[in-house]
Amino acid sequence: VTAWISFTTDYGLADGFVAACHGVIARLAPSVRVIDVSHAVPPGDIARGSAVLADTVGSLPEAVHLAVVDPGVGTSRRAVAVQARRGVLVGPDNGLLIAAIDALGGAQRLVELTNAAWFAPTVSPTFHGRDIFAPVAARLALGADLAEAGTPLDPDALVRLPAPVCLIAAGLIEAEVHSVDQFGNVQLAAPGAALAQLGERLTIGRLAAPGQQAAQGQLAAPGQEVSTGQSAIRGATFGDAQPGLLVTYVDSAGKVAIAVRGGRANVALGVSPGDLLRLTSQS
Amino acid sequence: VTAWISFTTDYGLADGFVAACHGVIARLAPSVRVIDVSHAVPPGDIARGSAVLADTVGSLPEAVHLAVVDPGVGTSRRAVAVQARRGVLVGPDNGLLIAAIDALGGAQRLVELTNAAWFAPTVSPTFHGRDIFAPVAARLALGADLAEAGTPLDPDALVRLPAPVCLIAAGLIEAEVHSVDQFGNVQLAAPGAALAQLGERLTIGRLAAPGQQAAQGQLAAPGQEVSTGQSAIRGATFGDAQPGLLVTYVDSAGKVAIAVRGGRANVALGVSPGDLLRLTSQS
Amino acid sequence: VTAWISFTTDYGLADGFVAACHGVIARLAPSVRVIDVSHAVPPGDIARGSAVLADTVGSLPEAVHLAVVDPGVGTSRRAVAVQARRGVLVGPDNGLLIAAIDALGGAQRLVELTNAAWFAPTVSPTFHGRDIFAPVAARLALGADLAEAGTPLDPDALVRLPAPVCLIAAGLIEAEVHSVDQFGNVQLAAPGAALAQLGERLTIGRLAAPGQQAAQGQLAAPGQEVSTGQSAIRGATFGDAQPGLLVTYVDSAGKVAIAVRGGRANVALGVSPGDLLRLTSQS
Repeated sequence: VTAWISFTTDYGLADGFVAACHGVIARLAPSVRVIDVSHAVPPGDIARGSAVLADTVGSLPEAVHLAVVDPGVGTSRRAVAVQARRGVLVGPDNGLLIAAIDALGGAQRLVELTNAAWFAPTVSPTFHGRDIFAPVAARLALGADLAEAGTPLDPDALVRLPAPVCLIAAGLIEAEVHSVDQFGNVQLAAPGAALAQLGERLTIGRLAAPGQQAAQGQLAAPGQEVSTGQSAIRGATFGDAQPGLLVTYVDSAGKVAIAVRGGRANVALGVSPGDLLRLTSQS
Repeated sequence: VTAWISFTTDYGLADGFVAACHGVIARLAPSVRVIDVSHAVPPGDIARGSAVLADTVGSLPEAVHLAVVDPGVGTSRRAVAVQARRGVLVGPDNGLLIAAIDALGGAQRLVELTNAAWFAPTVSPTFHGRDIFAPVAARLALGADLAEAGTPLDPDALVRLPAPVCLIAAGLIEAEVHSVDQFGNVQLAAPGAALAQLGERLTIGRLAAPGQQAAQGQLAAPGQEVSTGQSAIRGATFGDAQPGLLVTYVDSAGKVAIAVRGGRANVALGVSPGDLLRLTSQS
Repeated sequence: VTAWISFTTDYGLADGFVAACHGVIARLAPSVRVIDVSHAVPPGDIARGSAVLADTVGSLPEAVHLAVVDPGVGTSRRAVAVQARRGVLVGPDNGLLIAAIDALGGAQRLVELTNAAWFAPTVSPTFHGRDIFAPVAARLALGADLAEAGTPLDPDALVRLPAPVCLIAAGLIEAEVHSVDQFGNVQLAAPGAALAQLGERLTIGRLAAPGQQAAQGQLAAPGQEVSTGQSAIRGATFGDAQPGLLVTYVDSAGKVAIAVRGGRANVALGVSPGDLLRLTSQS
């Protein structure tokens, strides 16, 4: 049976940081194979790292998911390993792992990484990926018991990121832009099922800010809208719209998304991750 | 015997799309190993994806070549698998695979991917790489029969890209810029053999457009030339020219190319892929 | 026992150059596994390639380290293989390998690659990575004898890069910026141990140029300083400073480095690799 580690960081591929972690895994667990999820998470962007990992784990084999987006490296944030229903996760306890844990069926056990015998002999205060997380992941991938990694904690103690804004009402979705992919497609923090209740023709407008009202479970005030709404159709894929026109669809991660056939929807809408969009049925 | 899959896309490495496909292959065919050719094909640039794959396949082991640059995903374009003389190719039938098929000795069998039992249980209309192409490639790499992948078609039915402009006459080459590499070296859509008939000293000029005359097999009119010609020498490698001067040579893919020693030829010539250059012998 | 090759180049990941080399290795030595160190070394930047490899080899398993940053490809620079105390290195003899050789315990044997039977049948003058270095690395990883690769030379004959500027005196470090990583952290060409003799509070100033005095082992003249010095603290990690303030620390490669908590130190200091910084104790 092949054992797998998936690997997600904000290290980039220019420096040797990713390779150093691969090397540590290769030395401790040469039979284990590594699938790189992404190393192009923007530096310190925990929310983006969380989203990339959560959107991808469902396609991966059962694995130890090693993820390091860790702006607080060397400070008091905990280092943890989590047994989820389908797989194990290793990384900093800063919210990075939660969405993937949920996608893998929820946390069953949580351990703070306190067993220094599993770490590198000398731990750099600025490179826990190489000296703590990678060696722990390698040992767990080889079948070591999670309980040996450190101190058990209540899984409910895991740090969670604030939930992204997402309001669904009759004929309306207000949701934060969750991510923008390589093609400029705009993914919202809204489940794909919400799209069915909107009609075939929609209006998409940009709101002033991740509005306080919305964050508090209230709809944004109309005056909050900045951009003039643009028309869009609901489709199954990009090709369902005429070239240059907006189309909303359920994307490959099961979320509401917006594309422009032959163009970049993020440019057409003028949005980045964190911005707030409102989709309304055209009457 | 190790089975190999090569993998070429325009997915980029920031999102988890490439990893999701690696994951699907790992689940279905854990013994198969994957060589990533490039995932930095510009979004939707079929011609560039085609060139990268065709220039590389000759160096790869016998493999299933999985390639997905697929702006028409979810529309009526066919999904296909091709048995070439040396290897198998899987991807959209939009011209992406043809140059690599030619480099691998030509198409012997063509199948439209219609056997849904080989796909993911649910196929996302926007991510056929993960849900159709990767699982089919994994099964073929494990030795499944191409005939089981779907409906046989005449190999001549494969979609072809328009041939790039390339005219060769006594003392003259007019050809489209095929690609510009990491170093700014300019590769033309002209076979390296064409270079021998030019002299040791050349003039290189840029033409106004991928000229209609040239496309029709006629030489461009002199008035079509935009840039003043620049002098170049014919050499074997960059180092054969003085620093800063242009040198033409046969590149590692066997095509005519232009470099500047210690500089970037694409900047010196002011060209991008698709532009038209004329090389003439200096009398 | 798994055999490993590490692989460092300036090829980038957009073209198929890296994949072609992976392919050559896969064909000659399918059991060998490759760890990519970096392929994002800036084109022709031997010093940067040297630093990335040297900073990473300590984390890798025993391996053949294949490294190609080779602006002189096809000219008279030698192609070499080196037996170091812990590992083998293959690449151009242009200074690229020296720092890694030192990190691996020093050169024990040096061979110029003259055995053409180990090369590709046809060697492209512009792609020795694919046609010379990769096949040699594959054969050595499989256990072939270094002596069969070519002509033995005195290891002292290896080309060395000029040593980077680094002066350490009481309460003072003057050193060249060695690299800037993904996070904007600034690594100096100074050993971490030098930091202990500076106080808890430092001033960091930028000097006009990699000063001639410093290169000759003399301190830079005060008038040479360009920037007004900025205050910094000495810490163990980024989190030891207040957000936005400079912190100096010993980085994960054991060198003196400068960071800004939640920011980019290269921007705060206005420096790039090769620039000269002066760190002084605050009295």
